[in-house]
Amino acid sequence: MAMERAHAALSGTSHVAAIDLGGTKIMAAIVSPEGRIVNRTKVPTGKKGGVADVIDKMADAVRDAAKAAGISADQLGAVGIGAPGPVTAETGIVGVAVNIPGWRDVPLKDELERRLGIPVVVDNDVRVAVIAEHAAGAGRGACDMVGLWPGTGIGGGIIIDDQIVRGAGNAAGEIGHMTLKPGGAKCHCGGRGHLESLASRTAIVRWIAKQVRAGRKTALSKIVKKGAIGRAKSGELAEAFNQGDTLVLEAVDRATTYLAIGIVNIANALNPQRVVMGGGLVAALGQPLIDQVARKVHGQPMFAATNRLEITKSELGDDAGILGAALIARRAHESGARVSR
Amino acid sequence: MAMERAHAALSGTSHVAAIDLGGTKIMAAIVSPEGRIVNRTKVPTGKKGGVADVIDKMADAVRDAAKAAGISADQLGAVGIGAPGPVTAETGIVGVAVNIPGWRDVPLKDELERRLGIPVVVDNDVRVAVIAEHAAGAGRGACDMVGLWPGTGIGGGIIIDDQIVRGAGNAAGEIGHMTLKPGGAKCHCGGRGHLESLASRTAIVRWIAKQVRAGRKTALSKIVKKGAIGRAKSGELAEAFNQGDTLVLEAVDRATTYLAIGIVNIANALNPQRVVMGGGLVAALGQPLIDQVARKVHGQPMFAATNRLEITKSELGDDAGILGAALIARRAHESGARVSR
Repeated sequence: MAMERAHAALSGTSHVAAIDLGGTKIMAAIVSPEGRIVNRTKVPTGKKGGVADVIDKMADAVRDAAKAAGISADQLGAVGIGAPGPVTAETGIVGVAVNIPGWRDVPLKDELERRLGIPVVVDNDVRVAVIAEHAAGAGRGACDMVGLWPGTGIGGGIIIDDQIVRGAGNAAGEIGHMTLKPGGAKCHCGGRGHLESLASRTAIVRWIAKQVRAGRKTALSKIVKKGAIGRAKSGELAEAFNQGDTLVLEAVDRATTYLAIGIVNIANALNPQRVVMGGGLVAALGQPLIDQVARKVHGQPMFAATNRLEITKSELGDDAGILGAALIARRAHESGARVSR
Repeated sequence: MAMERAHAALSGTSHVAAIDLGGTKIMAAIVSPEGRIVNRTKVPTGKKGGVADVIDKMADAVRDAAKAAGISADQLGAVGIGAPGPVTAETGIVGVAVNIPGWRDVPLKDELERRLGIPVVVDNDVRVAVIAEHAAGAGRGACDMVGLWPGTGIGGGIIIDDQIVRGAGNAAGEIGHMTLKPGGAKCHCGGRGHLESLASRTAIVRWIAKQVRAGRKTALSKIVKKGAIGRAKSGELAEAFNQGDTLVLEAVDRATTYLAIGIVNIANALNPQRVVMGGGLVAALGQPLIDQVARKVHGQPMFAATNRLEITKSELGDDAGILGAALIARRAHESGARVSR
């Protein structure tokens, strides 16, 4: 169902390409005029070659994916990119891409346009995923929606009046850096008690590791080899959660309390119809996580903005990012985007 | 200056009326086609006559103000109202007006239209004040701005892309009910650790009273007769603040810490250009309060959304509410609003 809707939203007058740029891999996909993903190509991002090398790989991935789809790259109408970190959508400059060494204020749009000779549009990775959920997934029909993406960190995206909110400096959507516990757990940004430092997968695993050091038991110790719980992945966390491991359940319960407070705070400010939750933690723990968050949100005493708030799980899952990148490419092409220089 | 801009924003093809509905007084004003307030009438809201009596008084206040301005009420193009509590702008129904006994889901628009025979538009009081600041005051030129109104409680209003955000259920803007300290001071809504229960004038005075009970000294004890510090008004708080009273300075310092956290949280979500602060506490303590908040906001480690954030004081002050009510009346009239039944 969600995929059928995605096809409708993605259809147009040309093939377009989408890139999901991550710290470990670059995923490129080609979308046909009918709105179908006709090829996907995945390559490692690589840490050693520097920024230019990463952009070369992105260009190659697009060329390879196009070739596999039976066209050449210059037949593509546009390339859309979801990139980690702050992106200035107008200029296509990516501020800092966490996990890609040396990446700072990279003119990704210009650099990739120079290599491929076709129009490139760039936006933040979570933001494009939220755009995709809004257009074709769990957010459809909600004029005002909030996307919350807990995983390694916690990303967010806000739709008001059917438009993504970018903010005065393209920094909107950083819901993960909402302070919920002044003086609380340290966040990688330097702050304390941020939602991200309390309820991301990283925060959950860190809390469990601390409890284990204090002598508590968990099935995670058996699941994770050599007891390196601090490096537990989503799948391992999910396994212990599904086994009903007491410590893991307690850790998730703590996290959902903060996720619920974060959602209530943003709901009191914006009163959206719907919150869509996606990202690594949601992929791992699934609907039980959503249900737990929803129960806590609806248990709040101040309910003008929350009593009818719908809290739903991402429908596009892992594809949200690549579909969102394809969507911004499609929209750019259909509105006549050209190579900027 | 601000007033000259307000005249431009308020000018049009007829006289309009504005009402600022409060728990203790009803203020009605008539605005000329040139955008000038040509009369103001103030009457006590009264607690005894019930809801119908309050609406009768509003109608009388408009008639009296119109008469004093040399016109009759039926020559008015529209009446705009800023009302306390949640308002459904489309229907003009006011959910609960705190401080007005018995007020619950009152069809204020219909009731006042029936009495006056002219179109009535209603919105939340803080929201209209924020609309006025955005159009003609400290928020002008900021496509994305947030209004924060600390006083007895803490109200808010959010402008995105030059439009006020009302939300799916007309409940947007309740920034005061953002949880910043889970399990913290109780809020009148039943929640705990809300911005309002930590940083409103009420919260400041309550904290000071608690410290006095614990044996600490403050000049407020001398300023407030019989030591009833818990009922200290804004003026008395301001006097002690301006005298440099240690306990009051400490109380304000605590409050501004939470106001800053609240602002940073909303800025990380929406990345507005500007936050405009108004309301009773700002009127009492003035620019030093704003400066203290701004310093704390700009001292946060995660600064993508805050490094260029402007934090300014309301320019329209006490008039923001009545000017905002006049603005929604003017806009309704110029876009052809009619009496709905």
